[in-house]
Amino acid sequence: MSVVAVGSVAFDSIETPIGKVERAIGGSATYFSLAASYFMPVNLVGVVGDDFLDDHRSVLLERKIDLEGLSVVSGGKTFYWQGKYGQDPNDRETLQTELNVFESFRPSLPAAYRQAEWLFLGNIDPEIQLEVIEQVEGRPLVGCDTMNFWIERKPDKLLAVLRHVDVFFINDSEARLLSGNINLVSAARTILEMGPTAVVIKKGEHGAFLFTENFRVFAPAYPLEEVVDPTGAGDSFAGGFIGYLAKAGGLHELNLRRAMYYGTITASFTCESFSVGRLKSLSEEDITGRFKALVDLVHVQLE
Amino acid sequence: MSVVAVGSVAFDSIETPIGKVERAIGGSATYFSLAASYFMPVNLVGVVGDDFLDDHRSVLLERKIDLEGLSVVSGGKTFYWQGKYGQDPNDRETLQTELNVFESFRPSLPAAYRQAEWLFLGNIDPEIQLEVIEQVEGRPLVGCDTMNFWIERKPDKLLAVLRHVDVFFINDSEARLLSGNINLVSAARTILEMGPTAVVIKKGEHGAFLFTENFRVFAPAYPLEEVVDPTGAGDSFAGGFIGYLAKAGGLHELNLRRAMYYGTITASFTCESFSVGRLKSLSEEDITGRFKALVDLVHVQLE
Repeated sequence: MSVVAVGSVAFDSIETPIGKVERAIGGSATYFSLAASYFMPVNLVGVVGDDFLDDHRSVLLERKIDLEGLSVVSGGKTFYWQGKYGQDPNDRETLQTELNVFESFRPSLPAAYRQAEWLFLGNIDPEIQLEVIEQVEGRPLVGCDTMNFWIERKPDKLLAVLRHVDVFFINDSEARLLSGNINLVSAARTILEMGPTAVVIKKGEHGAFLFTENFRVFAPAYPLEEVVDPTGAGDSFAGGFIGYLAKAGGLHELNLRRAMYYGTITASFTCESFSVGRLKSLSEEDITGRFKALVDLVHVQLE
Repeated sequence: MSVVAVGSVAFDSIETPIGKVERAIGGSATYFSLAASYFMPVNLVGVVGDDFLDDHRSVLLERKIDLEGLSVVSGGKTFYWQGKYGQDPNDRETLQTELNVFESFRPSLPAAYRQAEWLFLGNIDPEIQLEVIEQVEGRPLVGCDTMNFWIERKPDKLLAVLRHVDVFFINDSEARLLSGNINLVSAARTILEMGPTAVVIKKGEHGAFLFTENFRVFAPAYPLEEVVDPTGAGDSFAGGFIGYLAKAGGLHELNLRRAMYYGTITASFTCESFSVGRLKSLSEEDITGRFKALVDLVHVQLE
């Protein structure tokens, strides 16, 4: 069993109040795959230019992420993003975006990936998300992320995607935009009617809610004393979440509750360094220790 | 055993996107006392004018709140506040404040209140908070609230208060201001060094953190589909929190964990109506049912 992850692989130049980094490895598929790799084998589908060197590949290969699905465009340049964060990690400014080879990304799943039991669709054009869904044989469980850009530009395509989605990840402002409801509980109900079995509404440092028809779960963000770089936290959340679910074996309530906490944990490690510095080399004790600490943070006994 | 609550009793005129109310009963001591009354007998210390009628008193008396400590200034007018909320409940505008009799409030505890085992100091001038502490015989457990106005104007007096405080309630922006730390974990550590055994940092709809030297607790806000009026939520949180602690018998970890959840519950009922409409008439089932639902929201089993 494995997880197929489709999304961006990028170089990021990032400045935060703590420091900065130039052309470090990033992208939604990168963060997702590294986080998920602690729970399940991951097959990555993405595209890079030939400026993506062996050193970059080895970051993924060391976590045993399969790169057969990572296309290399000869003479092309890898997706590049430059951004700056203020004192408040939610206060993010994009300084430069060069789509490069990502602009004409048309993912084609290798034959070995087409039996996937879990498929994660990172934040890309919903038309492409649909094309990927059609390439998978059988009926995989599908996790999906999106952003305000697609909600505003291609709402019909996004709704078509959502009919195939099992777990939908969205942040709070996007949930309000997509549903037309300012209240998150009402927003979640509206989004559940669009198709997903579970909607995860991410609130950054304020934690995340999971809603299904029958139950709700809240997980607080893991309290960090220093947020070095929040880039990739959302994708790392999805990676820990889906990776754990794939390992645990399905969408049962017990699994979904734990998945919320594992997603929170992998996201927290991502925030503790620039790029994937911390995320790429976690031990089992790192993960289980922080999982226990987070469960303890909310633990309360009934009378 | 009983809780003595010192703070404002007020008339509030409030407009929210849901509707409005004119000259309804409010004030920190009112919200605190009603919330705490579901757990312990409460003695209220405050001041009103003779525009505070029997109908207003009966709201408090029906919850068996002792009003011997509520001074009435003949010919005076009760503290009046007028405010307006935007779609975002955190977006609050003060339209009018008339301190009236509250301006010269110098609380004097009735003899029967001076043996209090629990004392709650609502958000008033820290000089007056100190005067109240001196009036209590013995060594009560002390809960305390404050606001940015006092942090900026009377920091030394506030620090003097904090040396007597067991549980300190503060919101996230005030915690950053008081500690000089933008990170809440660091802010809490700095504030704990000022004296309190426990610091509760309230984040409104994003829940609340409790920090002590040895452990941390997080409670999410109870997810409401409609916030009618958030006025008094913070004082209702403190009321449910201190009321439960007084009933449970002390600052043990088990008690503090549950207190965070009971405080969250009483605050949530306050938000569901204007003024104290919902808070004034809760049943035991209302409280225990919502407590169970909130505990369930964060429930996760270790592997």
